[in-house]
Amino acid sequence: MISYFSSDFKLAILGGGQLGKMLLYETRKFDIQTLVLDPIPEAPSRLAANYFEQGDLMDFETVYNFGKKADVVTFEIEAVNVDALEKLEADGIIVYPSPKTLRKIQDKGVQKDFYTEKNIPTAPYKHFAKLEDLKLAITANQTSFPFVWKSCRGGYDGKGVQVVRSQEDLEKLADTPCIAEDMIPFKNELAVIVVRNPKGEVKSYPVVEMEFHPEANQVEYVICPGRINDKVAAKAREVATQVSEAFEHVGLLAVELFQTEDDQILVNEVAPRPHNSGHYSIEGSYTNQFEQHLRAILDLPLGETESKIGAVMVNLVGEEGFTGDVFYEKIEDIMALKGVTPHIYGKRETRPFRKMGHVTIVNSDLSEARRIAEEVKKTIRVITK
Amino acid sequence: MISYFSSDFKLAILGGGQLGKMLLYETRKFDIQTLVLDPIPEAPSRLAANYFEQGDLMDFETVYNFGKKADVVTFEIEAVNVDALEKLEADGIIVYPSPKTLRKIQDKGVQKDFYTEKNIPTAPYKHFAKLEDLKLAITANQTSFPFVWKSCRGGYDGKGVQVVRSQEDLEKLADTPCIAEDMIPFKNELAVIVVRNPKGEVKSYPVVEMEFHPEANQVEYVICPGRINDKVAAKAREVATQVSEAFEHVGLLAVELFQTEDDQILVNEVAPRPHNSGHYSIEGSYTNQFEQHLRAILDLPLGETESKIGAVMVNLVGEEGFTGDVFYEKIEDIMALKGVTPHIYGKRETRPFRKMGHVTIVNSDLSEARRIAEEVKKTIRVITK
Repeated sequence: MISYFSSDFKLAILGGGQLGKMLLYETRKFDIQTLVLDPIPEAPSRLAANYFEQGDLMDFETVYNFGKKADVVTFEIEAVNVDALEKLEADGIIVYPSPKTLRKIQDKGVQKDFYTEKNIPTAPYKHFAKLEDLKLAITANQTSFPFVWKSCRGGYDGKGVQVVRSQEDLEKLADTPCIAEDMIPFKNELAVIVVRNPKGEVKSYPVVEMEFHPEANQVEYVICPGRINDKVAAKAREVATQVSEAFEHVGLLAVELFQTEDDQILVNEVAPRPHNSGHYSIEGSYTNQFEQHLRAILDLPLGETESKIGAVMVNLVGEEGFTGDVFYEKIEDIMALKGVTPHIYGKRETRPFRKMGHVTIVNSDLSEARRIAEEVKKTIRVITK
Repeated sequence: MISYFSSDFKLAILGGGQLGKMLLYETRKFDIQTLVLDPIPEAPSRLAANYFEQGDLMDFETVYNFGKKADVVTFEIEAVNVDALEKLEADGIIVYPSPKTLRKIQDKGVQKDFYTEKNIPTAPYKHFAKLEDLKLAITANQTSFPFVWKSCRGGYDGKGVQVVRSQEDLEKLADTPCIAEDMIPFKNELAVIVVRNPKGEVKSYPVVEMEFHPEANQVEYVICPGRINDKVAAKAREVATQVSEAFEHVGLLAVELFQTEDDQILVNEVAPRPHNSGHYSIEGSYTNQFEQHLRAILDLPLGETESKIGAVMVNLVGEEGFTGDVFYEKIEDIMALKGVTPHIYGKRETRPFRKMGHVTIVNSDLSEARRIAEEVKKTIRVITK
């Protein structure tokens, strides 16, 4: 049995953003040594790492040489050099989540094809190698407006995703491999975090309900438990677990789902790491998602996933019209409200819609938490001084 | 209004042990810059501080020069140079808790005299300037065996405290200023954490029940809420609040109390900082004690003190007979139990009874948490490899 706690064991984390920063609270809690690689010298998770290296996450040599210093390698962002991870794995270094899974998830076309192959419910789509092929399909009436265009690579936080309603919209798209997905009329966007360890032990968190900001296409509220009926919730957890098992995934898998008008559950996309939809778990759950991810990738027993209390999470994003040194206007006012905990990621500069932090509101009465969350949202502003 | 969050504001923390380490989780969460001073180069809270300095906490120049670098100064240990803190305060630097209060608390004789002056219930005692005076009082039959001897200075974790039953016990005592306290037959040892900010806003946490290890005189279980009747609980919170207000305290004050056979509440002693009896709050409370201490000393609104869920805390202390590189035997087994979270402080070397970490067990059913806590206690051992 490897000893992780106050030992010479080393965990390498690719990426030093807010997810890495919150993961480090847990490595510190367990006194596990960490190495962090990030291109930005003042990355949020520079500080609590035992070792920090500035470097390009997409560069083979950088990632490979960095990973060689550790016993286990993980990542907090999907945009990393997978070839280097595969080479590290071949060298006998443990890499979780596995590079094989990451490769599938990095490409939305491959991801969707995988769901089809594994009979996992997902919105109907077509997969195109280039923009020209999509245009031909439209001309041939094999695909029709409107549809959701998704770039196979590099999309996040609404980037690389477009609703295409006309020939004019079509002409603006980037020429990349892509999918064209049917527009699904849905009641709710849901998410389920599933955790699985190398032994195959698997657990899912309760279903959360997500509300998106209409313009920025970023999550505005995450509500746990989601206010949906038990049957739909059970189905959502079942589908999400099926996805984790299909990937033989190790670590957290955040599964974003649509609840359709007729209560079908469709997989939208997944993230193989701690996820915005699980931030509520820091205050809300028996085991928060970051501790849970560590437990999974280190092959420790998984923790209880159920909630201690109702929770609502609000993202703090930069206000439109403000760029520069950040100022959290009226943060003191929201801290006076019951059960409110702000998390400030540590980015000195705000920009419109930049994710600067989040606020969790817990309450034994979920509707009261939701009411306070609205008050939080109306009060605090992420602006400049 | 001062901006603390992602700003140039600096908080200095005297002491870099586990309490400081856990306080740093919260400064990181709020992105507040910190400076830490500790005599040990590999102090547990070296890592997540923005700046770490190795130095003597009792040395005037060291503490003064260190404090001058910050906007607000606090401490996580009472054994610091109070003259330097007073000078910093005179220079206009904010020091919370106040040096005046710390001076009273550092000396158990002065602390007890203060309770007497303020009509705060405490066990009857006599205060002696030196051992000789105590001996004379015994000869004169003004004090009689048995009694509890407490050194006025430097006692913690059972050090500097002795039950004196005979002339022979008396001869072994150190020659220091001391108090001789009546032995109080008590049903329970309780503790209440009170938080007060500079505006005078004050809140108390629920009463916790403490169980001590019979030999090491260290807390073995902390149970929240304490299994006592509502009337006694209300009285305990009232007395503890009275103590905080008498000190005009700013920050956390952990108030240790005796519940006597006839349900009187007596103040035993206090700690002006986050405290072992409040560790359960990390998982159990709406606002954990470390975040709460920060809120108080920064004059932010206080957070909700009530519990989200029942909690039991078990200290992890070094097993007798083991000194050297620590090994947490069967930690994996306890992590498989429901609601169990280990906290490893990050001390590489274990020694008999050294505080190496703690484990929190949460459960919506407190008696189930208590049962699991016993299992934790029986399973994990802090030994060497």
